[in-house]
Amino acid sequence: MNGDTYPRTAANKVNRYKERANYDVDFIHNLINTTPVVHISFLADPSNPTPVILPMIGQIGTYEHDEEPHCYLHGYVSSRIMRLGSNAEAGLPISIAATKLDGLVLSLTPNSHSYNYRSAVLQGSATVVEDVNEKVWAMHLVTNGVVEQRWENTRTPPDNVEMQSTRILKVKIESASAKVREGGPGDDKKDTDRGDVVSKTWTGVVPVYERLGAPIASNYNKVGKIPGYLKSFVDTQNEGAQRQANEAAMKVYGAGKKKADD
Amino acid sequence: MNGDTYPRTAANKVNRYKERANYDVDFIHNLINTTPVVHISFLADPSNPTPVILPMIGQIGTYEHDEEPHCYLHGYVSSRIMRLGSNAEAGLPISIAATKLDGLVLSLTPNSHSYNYRSAVLQGSATVVEDVNEKVWAMHLVTNGVVEQRWENTRTPPDNVEMQSTRILKVKIESASAKVREGGPGDDKKDTDRGDVVSKTWTGVVPVYERLGAPIASNYNKVGKIPGYLKSFVDTQNEGAQRQANEAAMKVYGAGKKKADD
Repeated sequence: MNGDTYPRTAANKVNRYKERANYDVDFIHNLINTTPVVHISFLADPSNPTPVILPMIGQIGTYEHDEEPHCYLHGYVSSRIMRLGSNAEAGLPISIAATKLDGLVLSLTPNSHSYNYRSAVLQGSATVVEDVNEKVWAMHLVTNGVVEQRWENTRTPPDNVEMQSTRILKVKIESASAKVREGGPGDDKKDTDRGDVVSKTWTGVVPVYERLGAPIASNYNKVGKIPGYLKSFVDTQNEGAQRQANEAAMKVYGAGKKKADD
Repeated sequence: MNGDTYPRTAANKVNRYKERANYDVDFIHNLINTTPVVHISFLADPSNPTPVILPMIGQIGTYEHDEEPHCYLHGYVSSRIMRLGSNAEAGLPISIAATKLDGLVLSLTPNSHSYNYRSAVLQGSATVVEDVNEKVWAMHLVTNGVVEQRWENTRTPPDNVEMQSTRILKVKIESASAKVREGGPGDDKKDTDRGDVVSKTWTGVVPVYERLGAPIASNYNKVGKIPGYLKSFVDTQNEGAQRQANEAAMKVYGAGKKKADD
């Protein structure tokens, strides 16, 4: 899939700030896979136009001989979604969003304030994973998506009761797009020309990133030392997240603008 | 509104993990107001069952003589939403979600892994704010919701061009609910009884919180020192976010369980 892009369609075409649009498959999949909580939305009832919106865990992967990657969703799969996802021949129409905030962009006027961010949206159709082997594979994918190597360091495989109580949705990705904003503030000349405004208004970026704190043992934990894989995961995540937010902040806004394509 | 709760209805009733449900108005509003990116979803076209999902900035407040607080949304308001929000007599049906991840909860088995989190969902109807005074008031609310006192420390008021290009949606809140999970892992007795599993599996919580980094000045910034209000905002946010994630991690899971109210 390296270098592949999602086709631009009416459903996913970014119409504003086109230079922020990104259709790169690897970029979009990586954003979903490194965002610990995605939001999904779907219609629970065709007669009610207010969609349901829910936080869930999402991971994209390709199962065995599948021809393409799917997005696997784990979380509270209500009997409502289950019914919709099981009944619908073609699956339940669903949207999935993953957003990472990278910085608060502070400019001379409220109007030109912004965020540095990376945001991806998928549209697709969800069905319930019934195949036992695929379900275990997806549980492994989701667990290690939260903490690398966690599956291998817990009591597995899941027993029958656990298999019954776990529900995984598999989303066929029909459309996807992303948006990225990075760099410092971009004020209009009308304000940067005003010495009185520039001399008293601090402008720049406050980087924002997700931080993992020192692990806190449970009251029944018997493992004295924090395991290496966990310590290494926490350190790597923290180093990467902070670096990414700082790098985004230090870019010159608009310098990497792509030409609006159409 | 102190102590008030949202009514439980078919639309917002939490059916699973009832003990995690929270209908407290202050709690829900505070969660929306302290979450820098909310996700919204709505139907763009009644004939297309796949909802649109978008990241936006949301702040709840009560304008002047309004009888109740509304959720104001700022972000890229497409001509599509604008049309839907302007045309619909009763407003555009919309859902809004705010989620804060507080920790990765690591237990003995993948099945009982969880997150500490706080999540709120609102349902309501959105209209476009046309009144100029209310629009400026909402811009002030949203700007200071991102960084306290930022409005007072930038070039204001917005000029005519800025007023024209800024669009704010006002959502009448028709229903709302929240869910909270806190505490350490909660493994089943079948696993905590197994010495072989307990002796080799680290269990506990990795606290997660949003961190604001040291502000990075723009290439046209002329204010030598980071202003006091900004430094104080960054420090207060960081201290509070870390404390909250650690406190959630150190609670005993299930100790504060409310009785499931049916």
